[in-house]
Amino acid sequence: MDLLSKIGSYDFLVEPFHCDFSNHIFLGHLGNHLLNAADFHSNERGYGMDYLNTVHKTWVLSRFVMELDEMPLAYDRITVDTWVENVMKFFTSRNYAIRDKSGKRYGYGRSIWAMIDTDTRQPVDILAERDGLITKYIETDEPCPIEPFKRVKLSKAAECRRIVETRYSDVDVNGHINSVKYIEHILDLWGLDFYRTNRLQRFDIAYVAESHCGDRLHLFVEEVAEGEFCVQVMKQTPESDAGQKADAELKEVCRCKIKFVAK
Amino acid sequence: MDLLSKIGSYDFLVEPFHCDFSNHIFLGHLGNHLLNAADFHSNERGYGMDYLNTVHKTWVLSRFVMELDEMPLAYDRITVDTWVENVMKFFTSRNYAIRDKSGKRYGYGRSIWAMIDTDTRQPVDILAERDGLITKYIETDEPCPIEPFKRVKLSKAAECRRIVETRYSDVDVNGHINSVKYIEHILDLWGLDFYRTNRLQRFDIAYVAESHCGDRLHLFVEEVAEGEFCVQVMKQTPESDAGQKADAELKEVCRCKIKFVAK
Repeated sequence: MDLLSKIGSYDFLVEPFHCDFSNHIFLGHLGNHLLNAADFHSNERGYGMDYLNTVHKTWVLSRFVMELDEMPLAYDRITVDTWVENVMKFFTSRNYAIRDKSGKRYGYGRSIWAMIDTDTRQPVDILAERDGLITKYIETDEPCPIEPFKRVKLSKAAECRRIVETRYSDVDVNGHINSVKYIEHILDLWGLDFYRTNRLQRFDIAYVAESHCGDRLHLFVEEVAEGEFCVQVMKQTPESDAGQKADAELKEVCRCKIKFVAK
Repeated sequence: MDLLSKIGSYDFLVEPFHCDFSNHIFLGHLGNHLLNAADFHSNERGYGMDYLNTVHKTWVLSRFVMELDEMPLAYDRITVDTWVENVMKFFTSRNYAIRDKSGKRYGYGRSIWAMIDTDTRQPVDILAERDGLITKYIETDEPCPIEPFKRVKLSKAAECRRIVETRYSDVDVNGHINSVKYIEHILDLWGLDFYRTNRLQRFDIAYVAESHCGDRLHLFVEEVAEGEFCVQVMKQTPESDAGQKADAELKEVCRCKIKFVAK
């Protein structure tokens, strides 16, 4: 079988209804384009969901970071390049570059994925899949000039700033809250006035556990440096609502670190 | 100048993250594709936002209905056909057909648009724009076999079922709550259990007034027949929060009629 190129490139139009008040794409929609690019790239090369579904396995997003010098505007035609940077037994790292045809670079992304068995929900050996086909596509020369994932640590001082009741539109085909929806809910912690004078520069998220429709998401926030915030999302499942120890039953779902810069 | 075809056809991929727990596209995302098709069609023909922005005018969506026999699934490649059915001084009607390449029909849509001056926010004469260019594109032969808009009337018995606090991700470039976001918030009134046994067949919405970030949307619901609901969205602006007569200060934003059928 002939191998395709290691780097896949996918074009997207920035849709006007996917843009915020300043006419720049919402980070959640941009993240969605990156995840679509990953999906297309892996399917075309034989180790994507299309194949994995047939053997009861799936990719699970574990970490995701995007760093941007500039956000694309409505009607911009952007290209997302994506490639596999490394593969280990239980994790693979995949990078992204966001650019336009003229060579302008908007920013970059990094992600880490695990593979699980959809019956047992346990991690499986990525290298064992299709005789390690994915390793034929490792690309180590392409630069991804953004810092790797950072440790996100909140102190006791972190405050619960908002509780989100999850609903129908939050849920994906696996019955879990959609990865992109967390990004949306987290970024809704700041108001229009804040976004008028601040630009999101880096968004780094670690997905720890799944949450389900009806879970109440408690968003804890701590400003750790000027313009830098840590956010921890804790879930409360409906069964525990009536309990006396509701606080004790919060379980971590994801945590992220966000950096804004003054406009 | 040569005229283009009256009907424009635009292809969309149903993205996996735009699908609900049952793997069918969320109606809001499908609606977004229809609005994008309208945008592309009118821009290509010279009476779209691209041109209107230069003369300080814009299209405003007034009514929107979608009726579906079947919802597209993840990875389906769908085509949206759109055309102008009629033009009057202050309103134009635009229709949509949603199909695939094999000729399968998913459903249809209808919309009514007004044109306003962006400085005065007042309606303007559509026929006066570019010597009535839009009238050269009226298509009356193409069928749109769904019923026209229906009158939505709620009685005093309608209950406020949910209050939505509008946030950053709800707001579009005009500073208004995005038309598609109302659809999402309204459909979130029903839970997963309901959607497991019921399919959305028709969604008919009338946009009455704009709302802004920070407005609290009160969603009033009344079941008018089996599986048929009327929803009225009323806004409460933050200034009135402290007032004693908060209820009296609710102003209508949109109203819609939704029909579900048993799966």
